[in-house]
Amino acid sequence: MNMKTPIYMDHNATTAVYPEVKEVIKHALDLTGNASSVHTSGRAARKLIEDSRDSVAKMVNANSKDVVFTSGGTEANNMAIRSFAKSSAKIRILASAVEHSSILKASPNIEIVPVNSKGIIDLEALDIMLTESPWESGFGSTLVSVMLANNETGVIQPIPDVVSIAGRHGALVHCDAVQAAGKIPFDLKALGVNLLSLSAHKIGGTAGVGALIINDDLKKDVKLLPLLFGGGQERGKRAGTENLSGIAGFGHAVEYTLKNLPKYKKISILRDRIEKELSSHSNVRVFGSGVSRLPNTSNLTMPGVSADRQIIAFDLAGFSLSAGSACSSGKVGPSHVLAAMGVANDEASTAIRISLGFPITSKNVEMFIKVWRDIFKRSNASTKDLEAA
Amino acid sequence: MNMKTPIYMDHNATTAVYPEVKEVIKHALDLTGNASSVHTSGRAARKLIEDSRDSVAKMVNANSKDVVFTSGGTEANNMAIRSFAKSSAKIRILASAVEHSSILKASPNIEIVPVNSKGIIDLEALDIMLTESPWESGFGSTLVSVMLANNETGVIQPIPDVVSIAGRHGALVHCDAVQAAGKIPFDLKALGVNLLSLSAHKIGGTAGVGALIINDDLKKDVKLLPLLFGGGQERGKRAGTENLSGIAGFGHAVEYTLKNLPKYKKISILRDRIEKELSSHSNVRVFGSGVSRLPNTSNLTMPGVSADRQIIAFDLAGFSLSAGSACSSGKVGPSHVLAAMGVANDEASTAIRISLGFPITSKNVEMFIKVWRDIFKRSNASTKDLEAA
Repeated sequence: MNMKTPIYMDHNATTAVYPEVKEVIKHALDLTGNASSVHTSGRAARKLIEDSRDSVAKMVNANSKDVVFTSGGTEANNMAIRSFAKSSAKIRILASAVEHSSILKASPNIEIVPVNSKGIIDLEALDIMLTESPWESGFGSTLVSVMLANNETGVIQPIPDVVSIAGRHGALVHCDAVQAAGKIPFDLKALGVNLLSLSAHKIGGTAGVGALIINDDLKKDVKLLPLLFGGGQERGKRAGTENLSGIAGFGHAVEYTLKNLPKYKKISILRDRIEKELSSHSNVRVFGSGVSRLPNTSNLTMPGVSADRQIIAFDLAGFSLSAGSACSSGKVGPSHVLAAMGVANDEASTAIRISLGFPITSKNVEMFIKVWRDIFKRSNASTKDLEAA
Repeated sequence: MNMKTPIYMDHNATTAVYPEVKEVIKHALDLTGNASSVHTSGRAARKLIEDSRDSVAKMVNANSKDVVFTSGGTEANNMAIRSFAKSSAKIRILASAVEHSSILKASPNIEIVPVNSKGIIDLEALDIMLTESPWESGFGSTLVSVMLANNETGVIQPIPDVVSIAGRHGALVHCDAVQAAGKIPFDLKALGVNLLSLSAHKIGGTAGVGALIINDDLKKDVKLLPLLFGGGQERGKRAGTENLSGIAGFGHAVEYTLKNLPKYKKISILRDRIEKELSSHSNVRVFGSGVSRLPNTSNLTMPGVSADRQIIAFDLAGFSLSAGSACSSGKVGPSHVLAAMGVANDEASTAIRISLGFPITSKNVEMFIKVWRDIFKRSNASTKDLEAA
């Protein structure tokens, strides 16, 4: 067991909390006051929350009043799909095949839009599905949910094209920007989406906080119902005492995230170096290679070596990384993202996700490449031994 | 404006975070790892969460595996009602008239069980309602939701009697213990309830964390469905990356809470002093007086002076308190709790809630009584001036 601090290459699962954000959270922990109380103590809590709302809105070029704080990306995604689904008896929901499980499992009636072998949504299929929309059979509204960037491969979706096609068919668009936020710049109004999800712990804040941004121009005949009922918090859109320290941290994480965006230039160079070096081995495949991807993410195979085995070997060698999406069971299941891209189960089961963040150094990356080659060599050698036995 | 730190008498809205809990949270903020990741960093996060689960379970004498962490009391209450409501087409839900809004608004089909003038559930009415249960019309299960102690009045409900009556009719019982936790000792198994809700920020933890405890003996034919869908966290019962720092703090808040329980003896003496002194004024009414109440809570009227006016006057004089439940709009609406107790709107609108916690001193309380009398005198004088004008 390597007892040093692990080299962390799992930033898409969760990021480190920024030191500056920790300070803000510590300050918030010293405040005693329910943000809904009208007295001085309550108003101080309220101010922290509203300042954060302004910061989050500014990050994505939205209006502050359109930001609804949630308990995280999962709740934001669930709310987009289910509050919409509940808002009328006849609602149609389409989502790409590579969406996060908090979209795909949010409703039993989601129609899946396929992706191509690079993981990009099939725009023609989307157009056809929307053309064939059973409006005649009484659907009142249609929502199309497509993520900005995929958590497993980093592949970036052509959201403006999705919005344009959806718009021609009168459909609204939700965009899960949880994984893209902080890694690439974007703008709610430029994207043109109606709903957008964010999560704090992917951008240097803490887990347990996120936001659903509901753009003004959401059709007036579609009213989003709350997912949580009770008090009138979040303008009646989300009941429950606000996570004061988490929200305060979220607002400041946004600021440092924007400041740190240029650092991803260096990270993408390091990511590219890993891919170039490892691709020199035969049959190593990088998923989504050649299309627009997040600068920090690489999803690649180690031929003949299962992801489980790689992850344990990397962990013992002092590297923290995952196979695709984090999953609570601790088991590595087959990736629905790679399956949707047409990757066979056998090959997909040898893929791991490298997701870099700061601080990461050239030296870390060189060592990673060396360890990768060691594991590859050792595993193939032991496989040969087994075959020989 | 009083610039000193306000004397905080609004502990039922939210408590201060324990200094020891702040330290635990700061430690958790230094961990980088998604608790669902299998590598060393992820396992360190997982350990914090499971340790907290053990502490929370121990506090209420439950099994660790029965604790589901949520984003707070509201989500726990919503989950108890709505996951149950969804579990079969024919479910009957009964709740007392003084439940928190996160129960009463959780489903549109809740049948209300009345309370008496002291705020105690009418057990005879409950029995009759359950006897008249339309089982014949195909109801599969019935859930009765009654809180352990009321947030506005502190009145403690006879849960064992509720459980006994419900049991006779084959109904299950959910208990919202959010406000009772940390102020009085209790035991899930001794209470005999099937579901129990808790919130961290009412016991010295942070807002944004809570738990629903699902007792083992929940009937096998009733399966609680999740409220949030996506990843397999919380044994598939609650999707979303866990609020690591909040949950770590929750676990430690539980420990300090249990240690601090004896301090409520002193707090109840101070609360009683306030009530005795102020009741000497004619027509001052203490709601729930004479029945079992939380040791720290007093809900009383200042005849002729609106709660809004009192709260602002107390705030200016350096005291933080609220009129009943915290409400996000900043407006003080009529209390459904007092209305259910048969209190006329005119009288209810003059009631404020005093909820003490530590540190509170005899000196604070003496000063509070003095300020109360000043506000009472001034307000009645100015009312007379107005009448004379």
